[in-house]
Amino acid sequence: MTDLDTVRQMDAADPLAAFRQRFLLPEGQIYLDGNSLGALPRDTPARVADTVAREWGEGLVGSWNSADWIGAPQRIGAKIARVIGAAPQEVLVADSTSVNLFKLLVAAIGARPGRHVILTEPGNFPTDLYIAQGVAALLPRVDVRTVPRADIVAAIDPDTAVVLLTHVHYKSGALFDMAAITRAAHDHGALALWDLSHSVGAVELDLTAANADLAIGCGYKYLNGGPGAPAFLYVAARHQATLRSPLTGWMGHAAPFDFGDDYAAGAGVNRFLCGTPPILGMAALEVGVDLWLEADRAALFQKSRALCSLFIELVEQRCAGLGLTLASPAAADARGSHVSFAHADGYPVMQALIARGVIGDFRAPDVLRFGFTPLYIGYEDVWRAVEILRDVLDSGSWDTPAFRARAAVT
Amino acid sequence: MTDLDTVRQMDAADPLAAFRQRFLLPEGQIYLDGNSLGALPRDTPARVADTVAREWGEGLVGSWNSADWIGAPQRIGAKIARVIGAAPQEVLVADSTSVNLFKLLVAAIGARPGRHVILTEPGNFPTDLYIAQGVAALLPRVDVRTVPRADIVAAIDPDTAVVLLTHVHYKSGALFDMAAITRAAHDHGALALWDLSHSVGAVELDLTAANADLAIGCGYKYLNGGPGAPAFLYVAARHQATLRSPLTGWMGHAAPFDFGDDYAAGAGVNRFLCGTPPILGMAALEVGVDLWLEADRAALFQKSRALCSLFIELVEQRCAGLGLTLASPAAADARGSHVSFAHADGYPVMQALIARGVIGDFRAPDVLRFGFTPLYIGYEDVWRAVEILRDVLDSGSWDTPAFRARAAVT
Repeated sequence: MTDLDTVRQMDAADPLAAFRQRFLLPEGQIYLDGNSLGALPRDTPARVADTVAREWGEGLVGSWNSADWIGAPQRIGAKIARVIGAAPQEVLVADSTSVNLFKLLVAAIGARPGRHVILTEPGNFPTDLYIAQGVAALLPRVDVRTVPRADIVAAIDPDTAVVLLTHVHYKSGALFDMAAITRAAHDHGALALWDLSHSVGAVELDLTAANADLAIGCGYKYLNGGPGAPAFLYVAARHQATLRSPLTGWMGHAAPFDFGDDYAAGAGVNRFLCGTPPILGMAALEVGVDLWLEADRAALFQKSRALCSLFIELVEQRCAGLGLTLASPAAADARGSHVSFAHADGYPVMQALIARGVIGDFRAPDVLRFGFTPLYIGYEDVWRAVEILRDVLDSGSWDTPAFRARAAVT
Repeated sequence: MTDLDTVRQMDAADPLAAFRQRFLLPEGQIYLDGNSLGALPRDTPARVADTVAREWGEGLVGSWNSADWIGAPQRIGAKIARVIGAAPQEVLVADSTSVNLFKLLVAAIGARPGRHVILTEPGNFPTDLYIAQGVAALLPRVDVRTVPRADIVAAIDPDTAVVLLTHVHYKSGALFDMAAITRAAHDHGALALWDLSHSVGAVELDLTAANADLAIGCGYKYLNGGPGAPAFLYVAARHQATLRSPLTGWMGHAAPFDFGDDYAAGAGVNRFLCGTPPILGMAALEVGVDLWLEADRAALFQKSRALCSLFIELVEQRCAGLGLTLASPAAADARGSHVSFAHADGYPVMQALIARGVIGDFRAPDVLRFGFTPLYIGYEDVWRAVEILRDVLDSGSWDTPAFRARAAVT
């Protein structure tokens, strides 16, 4: 049995403890929703203010050159490349995760003529399924096939154009073996496209070692880039000359400032740019990525696993018999950096927790989801969260009309 | 001949003169590039700082509800609807102009089965042409047909699915008759899709009166929304139930927070949302739109025409024989809010002007472009800009290797 003294010793020995002070977090909360929206880095307000007042206000249109706004997609992309184990010229920051998925999915299908299947799993993050369905509705003879995750490898066949999977599942936190599934896709002539939204910054990623083809991911979760931060995309260097983006906007042109009438795809990954980059969001994202890169990543991933394992252990010990069922893999190396428990009244229970300052979130139909961000969550935070969870469940304080009333965003 | 005294009397009589103080503009510059990137409203830094520090930092994920982040696309869209003469439920703020164009172009083609032509003009803003070419490359049997603007109406025929035009030309400033061309499109069963990037906030727009079908536009020019501000899209209410976005991301789903596996298009214009809205950019854009809505629009459009006409008059008087040729319509009611002059050495001449504090821009191959934003440009600014232009041309001070050296963004 892990007791509070042990937990405090874990905090005292934590090599990442000082990073907590690099974030601005509200008093009186235990923020376990960094897997939905990461916390605010302490350096972000000044950087955004400088981008607004000096770069925009004083530099005006000249800042496209003088502040290198025009280079932000590649510059920040190269930093994210270090997070995911890619080469600098393989990653761009642009658009949203959904838009980037559309680009790469259509490009992947175009690169595999004669194959018509997008293979994915039911229960994948909705936008992945929806975008895939939209591609299938748009293009002739493209189908979306969903099979349970245990059957994915066996389902890859000569009709498979692309295997589209989320590396860490948004609800369960279950982790796919990226290298093994990518290999299986390649064995059958298919491409693999990975959604890294719940893994970037949260678990070890080495896209080069995994021989990954394509990936997309989110800037506002573990990269702490801010609400609706720009997303990123990865295209392996070996595919860049042949893949074509369907979103052929001017920023992806070979010479956008020649203002010619005919589209010519830009060099390398640049062709996957589309419109004008969102500079305020880029500025905030860059601070988050820079901060992440300061941390020792071995320590970070070790702490991530330790926080999640401690949470599971304490919940199972201290909340036994209170209606919770683990909805994440029990083994630390099979999970991302969040943990889910099912509860029949998950929605009001989560609202009651939030009212007590434990911020997680609810995912339909019955999942309480808790994210553990090693840069700003400590072991005693986990202890206190479990104590409050136990109290909420034990007291039945969650069972009120106010906690049952649904908000627009859950 | 208009003299400086007359110009100063025009400033003294300007009912919009006080708006100049609502912007933070650098000393010593005459900023005539608001048609590329609008200036910084005085209220924007505080609003963005509050969005970062309070809404994100303190409210964290709860701000999707408590700060109505989730409602920003519709809320700001309804404000832009007032600028363009649309109903509140016909406009959304989302993504970039290029991405929104892709959505609406594909939707328009889907709504006109059996028709295969996107009709547009050569020399349209490049991203419009490039996106149209990308759609033609993606979808079976879709072609892009370009005909000179004088021939557009005659070229609309039973093959035309959609007429895609930029309302105010990005280079010449020439204005299309939106109502007449839309009517001609409808007469032949086609849809009209208007790019309003250079007209929103700059010229009178009444999409309802013009019976417009579809439109897109930019947030960072005359709306002063900041670099890479989110763009907007307009779908006439009568088309909303039938048109389908190809970018079927989760934010366009009928019930995104049910997290179901199957896409179902959202109600009304909402189906044209895709990914998570970029909140920092939304906050800055909303300040710009709110500020625009404070101004008397009759006075604003009158001043816009007067500034442009004064510039043309003064250049023709005071820069005669110095190599400039008007590249915009001479008639004020045939123009937007910017004026272009061609010069054989346009690029270095513009760099020399910028070095003297007159900020316009250059558009290939030979165009000097000057934008006149009535909220923050006065008549004496126009006078002084012309004096500096005359001096630069007359002295030949533009003819140096440094001014000829090209920057990444021109």
